[in-house]
Order: sequence, then structure tokens, then C-alpha cells
Amino acid sequence: MTTKKTVPSDIDIAQAATMMPITEIAAGAGMTPDDIVMYGKYKAKITFDTIDRLKNAKDGKLILVTSINPTPAGEGKSTVTVGLADALKASGKNSMVALREPSLGPVMGVKGGATGGGYAQVLPMEDINLHFTGDIHAITTANNALSAFIDNHIHQGNDLQIDPRRIIWKRVMDMNDRALRQIVVGLGGPARGVPREDGFDITVASEIMAVLCLSSGINDMKNRLSNIVVAYTYQGEPVTVSDLEVQGSLALLLKDALKPNLVQTLEQTPALIHGGPFANIAHGCNSVLATQTALKLADYVVTESGFGADLGAEKFLNIKTRTSGKHPDAVVIVATVRALKMHGGKSKKELTEADTEALKSGLTNLEKHLETIREFGLPAVVAINKFHTDSASEIEILEEFCKAQQVPFSLTEVWEKGGEGGKDLAARVIDAIEGESSFKYLYDLEMPVKEKINTIIQKVYGGSEAVFSKKAEAQIRQFESYGWGSLPVCMAKTQYSLSDDPALFGRPKNFQVTIREVVPKLGAGFLVALTGDVMTMPGLPKTPAAKNMDVTGEGKGIGLF
Amino acid sequence: MTTKKTVPSDIDIAQAATMMPITEIAAGAGMTPDDIVMYGKYKAKITFDTIDRLKNAKDGKLILVTSINPTPAGEGKSTVTVGLADALKASGKNSMVALREPSLGPVMGVKGGATGGGYAQVLPMEDINLHFTGDIHAITTANNALSAFIDNHIHQGNDLQIDPRRIIWKRVMDMNDRALRQIVVGLGGPARGVPREDGFDITVASEIMAVLCLSSGINDMKNRLSNIVVAYTYQGEPVTVSDLEVQGSLALLLKDALKPNLVQTLEQTPALIHGGPFANIAHGCNSVLATQTALKLADYVVTESGFGADLGAEKFLNIKTRTSGKHPDAVVIVATVRALKMHGGKSKKELTEADTEALKSGLTNLEKHLETIREFGLPAVVAINKFHTDSASEIEILEEFCKAQQVPFSLTEVWEKGGEGGKDLAARVIDAIEGESSFKYLYDLEMPVKEKINTIIQKVYGGSEAVFSKKAEAQIRQFESYGWGSLPVCMAKTQYSLSDDPALFGRPKNFQVTIREVVPKLGAGFLVALTGDVMTMPGLPKTPAAKNMDVTGEGKGIGLF
Repeated sequence: MTTKKTVPSDIDIAQAATMMPITEIAAGAGMTPDDIVMYGKYKAKITFDTIDRLKNAKDGKLILVTSINPTPAGEGKSTVTVGLADALKASGKNSMVALREPSLGPVMGVKGGATGGGYAQVLPMEDINLHFTGDIHAITTANNALSAFIDNHIHQGNDLQIDPRRIIWKRVMDMNDRALRQIVVGLGGPARGVPREDGFDITVASEIMAVLCLSSGINDMKNRLSNIVVAYTYQGEPVTVSDLEVQGSLALLLKDALKPNLVQTLEQTPALIHGGPFANIAHGCNSVLATQTALKLADYVVTESGFGADLGAEKFLNIKTRTSGKHPDAVVIVATVRALKMHGGKSKKELTEADTEALKSGLTNLEKHLETIREFGLPAVVAINKFHTDSASEIEILEEFCKAQQVPFSLTEVWEKGGEGGKDLAARVIDAIEGESSFKYLYDLEMPVKEKINTIIQKVYGGSEAVFSKKAEAQIRQFESYGWGSLPVCMAKTQYSLSDDPALFGRPKNFQVTIREVVPKLGAGFLVALTGDVMTMPGLPKTPAAKNMDVTGEGKGIGLF
Repeated sequence: MTTKKTVPSDIDIAQAATMMPITEIAAGAGMTPDDIVMYGKYKAKITFDTIDRLKNAKDGKLILVTSINPTPAGEGKSTVTVGLADALKASGKNSMVALREPSLGPVMGVKGGATGGGYAQVLPMEDINLHFTGDIHAITTANNALSAFIDNHIHQGNDLQIDPRRIIWKRVMDMNDRALRQIVVGLGGPARGVPREDGFDITVASEIMAVLCLSSGINDMKNRLSNIVVAYTYQGEPVTVSDLEVQGSLALLLKDALKPNLVQTLEQTPALIHGGPFANIAHGCNSVLATQTALKLADYVVTESGFGADLGAEKFLNIKTRTSGKHPDAVVIVATVRALKMHGGKSKKELTEADTEALKSGLTNLEKHLETIREFGLPAVVAINKFHTDSASEIEILEEFCKAQQVPFSLTEVWEKGGEGGKDLAARVIDAIEGESSFKYLYDLEMPVKEKINTIIQKVYGGSEAVFSKKAEAQIRQFESYGWGSLPVCMAKTQYSLSDDPALFGRPKNFQVTIREVVPKLGAGFLVALTGDVMTMPGLPKTPAAKNMDVTGEGKGIGLF
């Protein structure tokens, strides 16, 4: 058992770090200054010409980091992702990390920052957590331009016969703002448009974020934008962006946002941070272009998916992999003693006490995710992310479990020690990659929609079956009649449980999952199946993280953590 | 009389141009690569360290470009501003231009672009017209974070006793979106906040834009943000940002946006493009920091104010100059034969026909603005912005008018010929600067609010007096009792007329101006006096400019003009 070491706060570590000029990071990854567009000294975008030039280079190995179902205890998935890339580099490998961009809403609300932690962080931390290179602002702008075009079309005569009661395209803001969840727009008479119900989602929930993350280039992005269904006519026919003839302007607004962003870790490992779709109503991983570019530039690319393996990894494998054509060569499942004890029934306050029974009970959650990864035919490695309160007996139980499951595992200390603390994990992952594997998708696209949903519920969640609301039944019939039935399904489910009930920790069994509604996302290229209430616009807590933020007269940030 | 010359479209000229790397533009202006932060090869921000280092350098001469009241014919004020800076450079002078940043809303709506025109443009045109360096997005974010903090405060118990009916802080979006002018937020029950009326302004109308443009540095900006009045309590007391304790986080969101942006003109003259507040409910000029920085770097700085001299120049001189401490050394008034004919009663369709009578009648508008500039004690020069339909006899009448008024004038052809077409104007302006002048403010700050308003109406608009609504009367009494009476007044009036009636062209006389409402902008540091309806959220036309926009697979923009 280790004792608590004094590790400074994330922002203190980040501000004390010495970064390499981004041109040198690029050079280390085989790029010239002309391959990048600089955004200050420590951030850059990779040009489309560069991506084109790299097209025929050999792909490196892809490592996907996922986790057990998240708990309020925190699992440290991003920290392990960054730390593993640093550990691979420290082990003499040519590695790169590919991450999602943080959303400002949660930064100002509760999290205060989202760029890894401790000695496993990406830099420049302040920039990445604030406006970064403006990608999310560009998505906000394109999303809301589309809303303005829709309302303007109706106001100017409504040639397309859009039913204002059946507009499914919502406005977005990169903010936690519950007052915007449900609103009425167009009030105040004829000069102020046509009144209708509307609402704002957080920007990362915009379909345009998913489109950007799944596009292979500008032309593909423009096609995807064209296909977005924004509303239905009075006759019930879908209205798309191409009907409004604005896909060109939306693509123009997004042309720079589509370029992957290059930064570095604390240990100067190159990092591509690009795109960040929600992991509930979207697929929850960084962009296809960034991952593909990283694979051309590095021998080992570490990336992560959103939430636990039931949501994030399932969608990474069934959706992103189908688009990119590249499946992971190994999957790392992050678990902590603390979080597993919560899955075994402990409350957050009780986690500092050793409790081997709760731990054993909570291990069922890890067990299910491990089964899921094996169901996909991929090798798994368990990363035990160490916390100073973990007892030796607890760690031993976790290790014994892994041995019994015949899954390689490693105790990682990247938060405290950076890449050095993850060298053993890196070695296990390289071993796993070199072993045998045979990836397969969990369902065929040609399966009926309901069968795809049931497959996910049974094979990934361990549930019994789906129960479809009347609305969902009707929608599925309708969408299949439109020819949309062969799209993959993007499940929108609580992240806290394998089931659709956030209170069911551990490994619930014999549960049904209610499919309340199905939403077409034809730009992204999937159908979203909504289970229960899915929050697409977070709220602020009583004391937002923003209250502790400040900036010095010289421009140094305070209160990001 | 010249015949129409074939000048390519603005975007064709811009895309065909060869830009110098921004490091070389910076070097030409006496800055090292360390003085700037690059945003790609052709855009940069100037650091606070650089601004600090330049503090004691000698100021160059400041030239303010303004115009007659704008008409649908277009006057080309930005084009003349850019062209004059190029002309000064072409005449061997060390010059710089300081402009406002374009708002995306009008770009997507009607204008398609706002970076000068013809051979007098700033580059890179596409970037500047789209997201540029993200300043306006940062302002949107800070503005809407504040809205979220206000609604969250009320939702979480409302310790400050904010009256939801008396919140004066609106949300913003950088979009032309009439459906957001009047909305209701917080619908849908307790999980979705407290219902109340709200609305969105366009971002450039946000008080935060005005704050950014008037701040001398981060600390000053933080103080200004603290002072913003967002609402009143149930007891009628003002609630400020400092009561919410979020000025630090807002300043953090704005720390990079506060740095001036360096770009170049088609003729490689350095250009600082920074800030762009509305010229009706705000003061309508680029940032104090950018203008001050330009003055330290160049011998001649050309800048512009919004709309006509009655709004833009008046506020530049009574508001911005009070903050910056630097008044212009000369003022250029832009006029065109076409626009003057509209002031003389012609419709837009009739402008290609020569009409000396309409022109003579419209000249009264120019005459009044000339009187106003002289009222401020500043030397004026009239720039006649030549259009190919202007007849020789019309030009002659305009020149005779200037001679009679004893004001220097110049026929400029910068749109067609770039800096070469403005050398004569440059010479006239330099002469004017070298003559005598004695600047004075039009009113003392200690005058009662109503007297300040009457002074502007009489001396600048040529009207008789203000008529105050009961509401405005009560507000002025209240604001004076709060100690806000010694702030300058920012008039919000139609730009199309010297009066508050947009249909009164030319030089109306003996008119009253109705003051409907007064709004405190304590962050910006002025009281806004609203006359008539002031549009703070534009709408889209039936066919938005966006419909013609596109982007090639290689990322080249189409349809900006």
C-alpha cells in the first residue's frame, strides 16, 4: 500500500510545465512546419494536404481505452489514456494519443477542466479547456445558422411546408444552461418570426459534432450535412438540409474545424485532440480524421471512448469502426478499487474504508465489460488505476479476479508518476496486441432495427430484451419504410448502469430496456434509440466552478483544475 | 467621367492576392516574432507584454474616417479607410489601419463579407469574415455564461432577490435570427429553471463587446465586467456582475479576445482588426487597445467609426476619445454622388441617371456633418468615393460645394486602383493634420443627463430638443440618484437620418427627438439613450447570402463577397 504523495493541482502542474514548440512536436512525428497551421506556439491544426499526403502510409496499432460504468468516485479514463501514451513513449515506442475536445459547459459548471490529471495531462491545459482552436464554436455557429435558416424559411412563406410543430433540429450552446432546455421562440408579432416550441442542447450534443467526427473530408462532410433531417412537413415527409440548400454554407463554417488539432502531453508525446460528441445521444469518440492521421504518424495510437464500455466502446466498435475501417488492436478497461466498491453498494463517503466484500460484489461490473470486449473478438487488458486509499488486500482481490478471468492486468500510477507509472501497462498492452484476435461487429447492418437493438441489450448490457413504446414502434416502421433501416443504432442510455435504470449498479440481470423514441441522425449516419430521459443540456450546480475562476493582469488563468 | 472598369469580385481579388507572412508584416511594424502569437501564417495577436513594452513610445497621428448618413446606395467607408492607409504607405509614410471585426450574422445574411472592397481590402478575407481569431465567439460565450449564472442563481434559491421580470441582461448569438428576438425560457417544470421572458441580441450588441473595446487591459476589463448591471431586485436595487461573483471567470473567457489582431491589406499595410460593437446601442468603433497599439507602431493610423458622423464620429469623439485619451488629428468624411442623390430624394433605382438638382439638395446632409466635425474643433477632409456612373457635372457640383465650404476634398479611386487611387486624398489629409486644430468635447460629463442629450441633438443632429417619455424621465432621475449621471451618453438612433425618423433624408430641421428609454451600461461606462425602435437582432432576408456559399474539397471558400 502506498501512502498519499503530495501531487500539486492539475493547473499548477500544467503551468509549471515546459512545453516544446509545436513545430518540434510536429517534427518528431514526421511533419514539417508546412504540414501544420499554428495557433500560437503550442497548438496547431494539421492541413488537409498533409492528411492527403499521408494517405498511403502504413497504419500503426490502435489501442482503445474504456472503463467500467462511471461512478461519482471517478475512474480516471482520460488520465490513463494520456499516461499510457506517455508510457509507450517512455518504453521507446513511437506513440501518440487521440482524445476528445472538452466542452466549455462542464468546465464552467462542475469539472473545471478535462485534460487528464496529475502527471498525465495534455497541454496547454488552459487553452484546451477554454476556446482551444475554436472548433466547438464553429459547430455552435453552424448548428444555429441552420436553426435560423429553418425559422427564416417558415417566416418567408414556408415553401417547403415545414410543420413548425415537428421541427426536430434544436439550437445549441456550449454552456450548462437548464433555462434553455425548453423555450418558446418567435414571440412578439410578425416582425419576430413564427412562434413555436424549441430548446437548446449543449453543443457537443449537436448532430453536427457527430458529423464532423465521422467525416473523412470536406466533401464527405458536405454530403453528411445535406442528409441531416431537420423537420417534417405538414404531410409528414422529412425535410433535410439539402432541401434548404444551405449545406455549402454550413461546410464553409466548418472547414477549419474539420482539421485535427495537434498538441502535446506533459512528457511531450504528440496528442491529437479533435471533436467531442456526447456519448449518449451520439457515439462519444474523437474524430475519425484525427485517429486516422495519428495512425499514419505513430506506431501506437492510444484513444478513448465515452463513459463505460457498454456505451462508449460498443459505439466505438459498431459505429466509428464501421466508418473509419480501422478497429482497435487491443482494448484497455480502466477500473479503480473505489469505483468497484461503489458498484458493490458503497456510498461515495464510505470509499476510504477498505471493504473487500463490496469490492468482490462490484467486480461483476468489470466482468460484464470484459465479456463484451471478448464478444467483439478483441484482446482486453485491465488497467487498475491506483488511488492512495486502496488497501493491499483490495488490490490483491482485484488482481486475483483478473487472473481467474485470464485477462492481463496492470497496476498503473500514471497520475502520480506520469509515463514511468504506466510502463508495465504498456508492456501488457503490447503483448496483447501481438497475440491473436479476430474482430467482428456485434450486428449486421441489414438486421431489422429492433433486432439490432435487442442484440446490443443482450450481448453488451446483459439484459433480456427491449420494450418498445408505441411511438418508437411507429417510428421504426416509418424509418424502415424511408429506407433508413440499415443504419447502425446509437443507444442513448444512462452511463451509470448497464441497464436503463441509473440506480442499478454492479451487474444487473434479467432486465428489460425501454425504447422510448427513435431519432434519425442521417448526417451522422445512425438512428438514436432513446431509453429513459436523456439529458442533452446540463445545468449548473449551486456553486459553479466558474465562481473560483479568475485571470491575472498578465493573462494567467486561475481556478481551472 | 470614367467608364466602368472590369474589377473582379472581392473574393476573387482576395484569393488571387499574395500575402506576406504575418511575421514579416510584424517585422515591418517593428515587432519580433516573440511580440505576436500566430493564428496560422497570416493572422496574429499582439501580446500584452508587447503592448506594455510600447507604452512609452511616441504616438503617431490618428485619422478618423466617417461618412454622411448611410443609404442603400453604399458609401464605401471601410474601403476608403483601407485605401487611405495603403495610399499613405504608397506615399512613403509608415501607416497602419485599425478596423472593426465583421460579425458573422450579416455575413451569412446580406453582406456576404465586410473587409473593404475592390482593391482596398484586408486579408485573409475568408478568415476575417468567418471565425477570424475567435474573439466574437469568446464574447458570445462570456455573455451567455453570465445569462446562465443569472438563471442558475434564481433557480438555486435567489439569495440576491433578483426579480425575474426585471432582468436587463439578454443572451446573444452571432447570427441574424429574428425568431430569437423575443422568447420565453425556463419552461417545462422545476428541472428546467424559472420561466421568464428573454431574448437574444446579436453578439456585437452585447455590452461585453463594448467593454472589450474600451478596456485598457485585463484588470480594467475585469473592473468593467464587475460593474455591469444585469437586473434589479424585487426592491428595485441594481444587481451587478460583482454581486454574482463571476467577473473573474468572464475575464478568463475573454483574456485572449482582448489582444489586438494583426493582419494585412492587399498592399501589405499592417492592419489591426479588433472589436466591433454596434454603432447604435454601443459606441461603434474598434478597440482602444488596438488603436493605441497602432499609434505606437505607425506614424499614421487610419481608423473608422460606425454609420454616419452623427452616430459614429460623435461617439468616437465623446466616448472612445475620453477613454483612450487620444483624439483624431483629422477627420475624413466619405461621400458619394449616388448617396447624396438619395439624400436629395432619388430612389436607389434612379441613381444611374445624372441629376444635379437631387445632388444639390442632398449636399445639405454632408454640410451638417462637416459643421459637426468643425464643432469638435477638428480639421475635416471630404473623400469623394468615385463610382463609374458618376457624371462629370455631378462631380463638379460636389467639388464646388467643398470649395465653397472651404474644406479640402479629394476624388478617390481606391476601390478600382488601391493605394495609388488615394494618394491625393493622403496628401490632403497630411496637410490637414499639419494645420491648426483645437479639439474639444461637445459636452462636460458633469452636465445633467438631459442636457448632454440635448447638446448632442442640437449640435450634432441639428434638431431642436429632446422629448423624454415618462419612463425615460423616471430612469434618468433614478440613475442620477445612483450616481450614474456623470457618465457619457451613447445615443441609439436610426443611422439613416440625422433625425430619429429614418425616412427624413438630407438635412431635416426643427425636429424633436423622442427619448423612449435609458439603459445603464456601467461596464462600458455610458448610459444608452434609446430613440425609437432600435434593432439589436437582425433578421435574414428571403434568400440569405449563405445560400450562395460553398467550400471546395480543398477548403477554398465560395460565395463570400
